Amino acid sequence: MLSEETKDQPGARPGVPQLSAAEFEQAKTIYFERCAGCHGVLRNGATGKPLTPNLTRELGYDYLRNFITYGSPAGMPNWGSSGELNPQQVELMAKYLLNDPPQPPEFGMGEMRKSWKVVVPPDQRPKQKMNTLNIENLFSVTLRDAGQVALIDGDTKQIVNIITTGYAVHISRLSASGRYLYVIGRDGKIDLIDLWMEKPDTVAEIKIGLEARSVETSKAKGWEDKLAIAGAYWPPQYVIMNGDTLEPLRIESTRGTIVDTQEYHPEPRVASIVASHFSPTFIVNVKETGKILVVNYEDLKNLKVTSINADRFLHDGGFDSTRRYFLVAANARNKVAIIDTKTNELVKIVETGTTPHPGRGANFVHPTFGPVWATSHLGSEAISLIGTDPEKHPQQAWTVVQELLGQGGGSLFIKTHPNSRNLWVDTPLNPEPSVAGSVAVFNLDDLGAGIQVLPIAEWAGITDGNPRIVQPEYNRDGSEVWFSVWNGKEKTSAIVIVDDKTRKLKTVIKDPRLVTPTGKFNVFNTQNDVY
Amino acid sequence: MLSEETKDQPGARPGVPQLSAAEFEQAKTIYFERCAGCHGVLRNGATGKPLTPNLTRELGYDYLRNFITYGSPAGMPNWGSSGELNPQQVELMAKYLLNDPPQPPEFGMGEMRKSWKVVVPPDQRPKQKMNTLNIENLFSVTLRDAGQVALIDGDTKQIVNIITTGYAVHISRLSASGRYLYVIGRDGKIDLIDLWMEKPDTVAEIKIGLEARSVETSKAKGWEDKLAIAGAYWPPQYVIMNGDTLEPLRIESTRGTIVDTQEYHPEPRVASIVASHFSPTFIVNVKETGKILVVNYEDLKNLKVTSINADRFLHDGGFDSTRRYFLVAANARNKVAIIDTKTNELVKIVETGTTPHPGRGANFVHPTFGPVWATSHLGSEAISLIGTDPEKHPQQAWTVVQELLGQGGGSLFIKTHPNSRNLWVDTPLNPEPSVAGSVAVFNLDDLGAGIQVLPIAEWAGITDGNPRIVQPEYNRDGSEVWFSVWNGKEKTSAIVIVDDKTRKLKTVIKDPRLVTPTGKFNVFNTQNDVY
Repeated sequence: MLSEETKDQPGARPGVPQLSAAEFEQAKTIYFERCAGCHGVLRNGATGKPLTPNLTRELGYDYLRNFITYGSPAGMPNWGSSGELNPQQVELMAKYLLNDPPQPPEFGMGEMRKSWKVVVPPDQRPKQKMNTLNIENLFSVTLRDAGQVALIDGDTKQIVNIITTGYAVHISRLSASGRYLYVIGRDGKIDLIDLWMEKPDTVAEIKIGLEARSVETSKAKGWEDKLAIAGAYWPPQYVIMNGDTLEPLRIESTRGTIVDTQEYHPEPRVASIVASHFSPTFIVNVKETGKILVVNYEDLKNLKVTSINADRFLHDGGFDSTRRYFLVAANARNKVAIIDTKTNELVKIVETGTTPHPGRGANFVHPTFGPVWATSHLGSEAISLIGTDPEKHPQQAWTVVQELLGQGGGSLFIKTHPNSRNLWVDTPLNPEPSVAGSVAVFNLDDLGAGIQVLPIAEWAGITDGNPRIVQPEYNRDGSEVWFSVWNGKEKTSAIVIVDDKTRKLKTVIKDPRLVTPTGKFNVFNTQNDVY
Repeated sequence: MLSEETKDQPGARPGVPQLSAAEFEQAKTIYFERCAGCHGVLRNGATGKPLTPNLTRELGYDYLRNFITYGSPAGMPNWGSSGELNPQQVELMAKYLLNDPPQPPEFGMGEMRKSWKVVVPPDQRPKQKMNTLNIENLFSVTLRDAGQVALIDGDTKQIVNIITTGYAVHISRLSASGRYLYVIGRDGKIDLIDLWMEKPDTVAEIKIGLEARSVETSKAKGWEDKLAIAGAYWPPQYVIMNGDTLEPLRIESTRGTIVDTQEYHPEPRVASIVASHFSPTFIVNVKETGKILVVNYEDLKNLKVTSINADRFLHDGGFDSTRRYFLVAANARNKVAIIDTKTNELVKIVETGTTPHPGRGANFVHPTFGPVWATSHLGSEAISLIGTDPEKHPQQAWTVVQELLGQGGGSLFIKTHPNSRNLWVDTPLNPEPSVAGSVAVFNLDDLGAGIQVLPIAEWAGITDGNPRIVQPEYNRDGSEVWFSVWNGKEKTSAIVIVDDKTRKLKTVIKDPRLVTPTGKFNVFNTQNDVY
């Protein structure tokens, strides 16, 4: 509870609202868990708007409280009206934002090594697969607010294990062989899970920063399972590690100059990282500077990095179907940047809809325009299709060849599969509950027919709370699409599995242990960048 | 004058001494001009010890005042007893150091462009050499405290022009063709001087930071005179510019992790920069992180940088005689790091004497050990010879094959020339005036015979003040060695020219305009890295 004297419009007063130490701590935690991802630890903004006190004080307390309560169609979640924050928490956050942000500490090699733990050393691990699981069809499912991942058998739909991880695991990645699963929490904790164990579990862990989003593994020939890399939001840095122990080997800061203004930025956060399948390189996307770093990992003592000028604010992206080109959203600039991983050069920057958020995107062969890669948007209902075949479709290559219309803004993920002719688009952050609770699907052979809307939350039989449908993910052979029905922490969530051919409900996985499921990563598709 | 109540041992009191705004400004200026070079803007130390308030407060006011007054044999100049700072200034600095350092501002593209001025656009410059000077034997001489360089005709010994520049020009560099002269002041100001003009003068200028040391130009085939690069101490960054206009093109921050601890450093200063003659790369030495950056300048939009792990604290260095290998002092670590510019890899880190300070070093063929590169030291009388011929002298390569003994510590520069068999060693920072005022010379064919000491200050006929002899520099054909007789700003200085064969005085250049001459750069030798 806030104290009485700060309750009425503190932002309108000459000073700023005072928070007690306990209130400040609570607000700091909420900011970290809910806000920092889009607005930045130092509040300089990125996917979300800047929230530095000079700006928030101009907006004032009322404006902030209302905005946090109701959100905006441009992608700001409705934290208050969705019930995810109660009115006192909303008020607290509005006051917190009128105060200066605390300066977060550094987190270097000393801190990393202190946090590093090899639970099972490599020589004590199985020499062969000790379980009967069809690992290629295993799913790693983020249980966001529980700080766990669930490993779910894609064949039997049974939960194989629930593993304690960092908070709100953002990404699961597989080693080149498919044996090792890496998950990274928003709190920068990585868990390395050995899928060869009788019951797959954590064999090593490390914390690589105070806030993080990305982890990836070396996939080039000769480098399979050898190295891992993780990128931090704070401190702004990435670290290359031993693949089987997570021992930190080299830390590189991303603090530097912004691509267009060429002014220094104190917090250039590492967004997505992908590994080339052909060359020994990691592709590291630095959000605030708008630079794509191609990091050659062959020689960590003489580290070669190509810094490609793209655009602010780089977020997530994926390869084209050939895996030669990488497409990444410069989301607050409404653009997608494309690089050629063979020449390590920028190919093009393409204008799309408002705030593209492709996840890894979706590749398919368009009936008219040939191979395309698709992204949906946080800020609009548009789905942009970008041509990706400069050889056979040079006219279409690296331009938006078609714009489809989905259900609305607030989309996070789009997905198809080489064995499918469906294109799935979620809208979990749409303020309209019926839109957030359903998913749109296109027929790739008849895009003009528009969308079919499947009421996934309804199919899950969940009416309590504000269930959001997030992240379509295919199974190994592309015959099923899995959706998370992401509900409040105290509410029932579920995973809904749809038959891809018939678009009919196939299975609902409900389990008290499935607390706030969000991202789901099929082992084979993730390992091989099939999307 | 300091106020009365802060006069007796303020450091011993619970608080720290208060300075008036005017005192603080004066101290800041003195710190910038005299101290920051070795101790860092943020006082984290490098060539000099760290001077952060937690450390200085432990040392206390008396200790600091005495140390600033008398210096140390390890390289700290005797600012007080030499008269360069008066007792009040010494006291002020001791108090200043007990206070927290001011946080310096950023200096990005906006500030650079504001400072950038093309005095004579390229199309209005001469199409051919408009003077009768023998440019190859011209010298660019830093007039340290005057904020000028003198261009001196090496044939006639006449001053061709005195050009206003930044403060205490640290380096003069030549474009690949020899036409353009670049000088950079400690205040980050670069002047581009066109030697083809009837009277060579500045044609463009820019300020690239608040404090800087290095400038260099592109020398690879096809890139002659095309680009320039400058490195700043503050902000810690380098900038690549158009070679003929100084238009800033790309700024890269050097803030990052330290090579051994892998902790973040907020102030990794750019020390020396050299350009490869064979590949399109600049070699950028980052002091506090201990990393050597090989910056490929072929494609500034997709910038390739190899970051070579060397050692703290990188300072100055030069090529071996083949110009394939680059040797650089990690001075506070008493080491020299060697990289191979063909493979962009570290070759070796070699232990030398205390605080090596090679300038660009000296290359010669040792009677016994073959090709060697030599460095003298700030902190000892040793001169270390490092073998540089891995093919024909593999046993000697990259080890100290011999240690010679000079006059004492406080050496800044060592020099020889392919046409000479003399090796010259200065000792300008030696606290003993007779040592600082003379120079030692070895016979390369009889190193066992030890040194001959030449009383250069005496030859210049200067007895007033505390004249220091600094930086031997050869003329074009290696027949003369030039020395600066560097005296106080209000005293008479001179340049003394010695006949290399006979080691006898040849000429003394005295001119009221030669205020505090220090570095001298012969055009041909600098252009071609002959040393």
